[in-house]
Amino acid sequence: MLKLYYSPGACALASHVALEESGAPYEAVRIDLGKGEHKTPAYLAINPAGVTPALETERGVITQNAAILGFIAQTRPQQNLAPVGDPYRMARFNAFNGYLASSLHPAIGKALFSRPALEGEARADAVEVALTRLQLIEDSLLEGPWVMGDAYTLADGYLMVFERWARAADLLDSARFARLNGHLDRTQERAAVQRVLAAEGLEVA
Amino acid sequence: MLKLYYSPGACALASHVALEESGAPYEAVRIDLGKGEHKTPAYLAINPAGVTPALETERGVITQNAAILGFIAQTRPQQNLAPVGDPYRMARFNAFNGYLASSLHPAIGKALFSRPALEGEARADAVEVALTRLQLIEDSLLEGPWVMGDAYTLADGYLMVFERWARAADLLDSARFARLNGHLDRTQERAAVQRVLAAEGLEVA
Repeated sequence: MLKLYYSPGACALASHVALEESGAPYEAVRIDLGKGEHKTPAYLAINPAGVTPALETERGVITQNAAILGFIAQTRPQQNLAPVGDPYRMARFNAFNGYLASSLHPAIGKALFSRPALEGEARADAVEVALTRLQLIEDSLLEGPWVMGDAYTLADGYLMVFERWARAADLLDSARFARLNGHLDRTQERAAVQRVLAAEGLEVA
Repeated sequence: MLKLYYSPGACALASHVALEESGAPYEAVRIDLGKGEHKTPAYLAINPAGVTPALETERGVITQNAAILGFIAQTRPQQNLAPVGDPYRMARFNAFNGYLASSLHPAIGKALFSRPALEGEARADAVEVALTRLQLIEDSLLEGPWVMGDAYTLADGYLMVFERWARAADLLDSARFARLNGHLDRTQERAAVQRVLAAEGLEVA
């Protein structure tokens, strides 16, 4: 059975939602970052990078949300969780997830979760970078109403993670980010998403 | 025909090498970052993120090296440029490329290319993060001799980009990073790689 290692509310939420949407049987294993459980020898043997998510399969471990989402979609093609039969559209799906992983996540992470916390001008600069990247999604990357157009895909659950962080930090202004706010509300209404939020002990944002 | 927008020596080199390895007909269009060509309205219409690479296909534009590499491998399956027929191995390929894009690239970019340049302790800290991430590849992620084991894949050309930057900055110590040094030398010996380096006006590192 698939086994997902996740930290509540962290970006592994995207892979957690993906598994729940897929209908595949899986076990979710909580890794408490506050207790340093991601740096134990046992966890480093699973993912030597010491981060979540990590998805244990019968053949070995897959890391990185973007790779895990593609794997889940590809191994459950009947669920239509990504455009798996179309290399061009699949590349667009992967590019969107890659943008989240390599551009949006580090920017919003720096703005909100730096330790020690950023203050004053340093925080304002970091927030501005994060907002600029959210704006690119609002204006260009989100096809609408879902990331890939008319149909929900696993990219939507991934985008939701950062929309939740942004809303919780009062960065998701309802006028400036009208499409992202609508997207977040729509995504959080999904039954699979609500089950995963409950399992991780999280509220609807 | 495929059209690749690249900036010489930047990370788009990975997609450039991938096209050359694939044997697909393509045109390479140079985007001069120093002249701000990535911020012109014409280029922003191609990639609103204002970065390279961007691959123009007959159906639209694909961004992000990891997505472009997957697309090229998937549309030229007879070239064996990635484990395209095996969802688990393909996910491992994508996870490796995702690690480069979201962890190694920002770390090494911050250490070497911050503007204004980092100095003193700030630079030393940034270099240390970059070296730690290179070490993870040296010790764990590189299956060897190629990224995915016995066969060259497009992930190798992507890893080469950062190995080149590291060697140019004297960060690729030959003892500490013996496997990465061997990998870089082996990759740069490939005929397709040498053609692309020449086309971009670059030397072997």
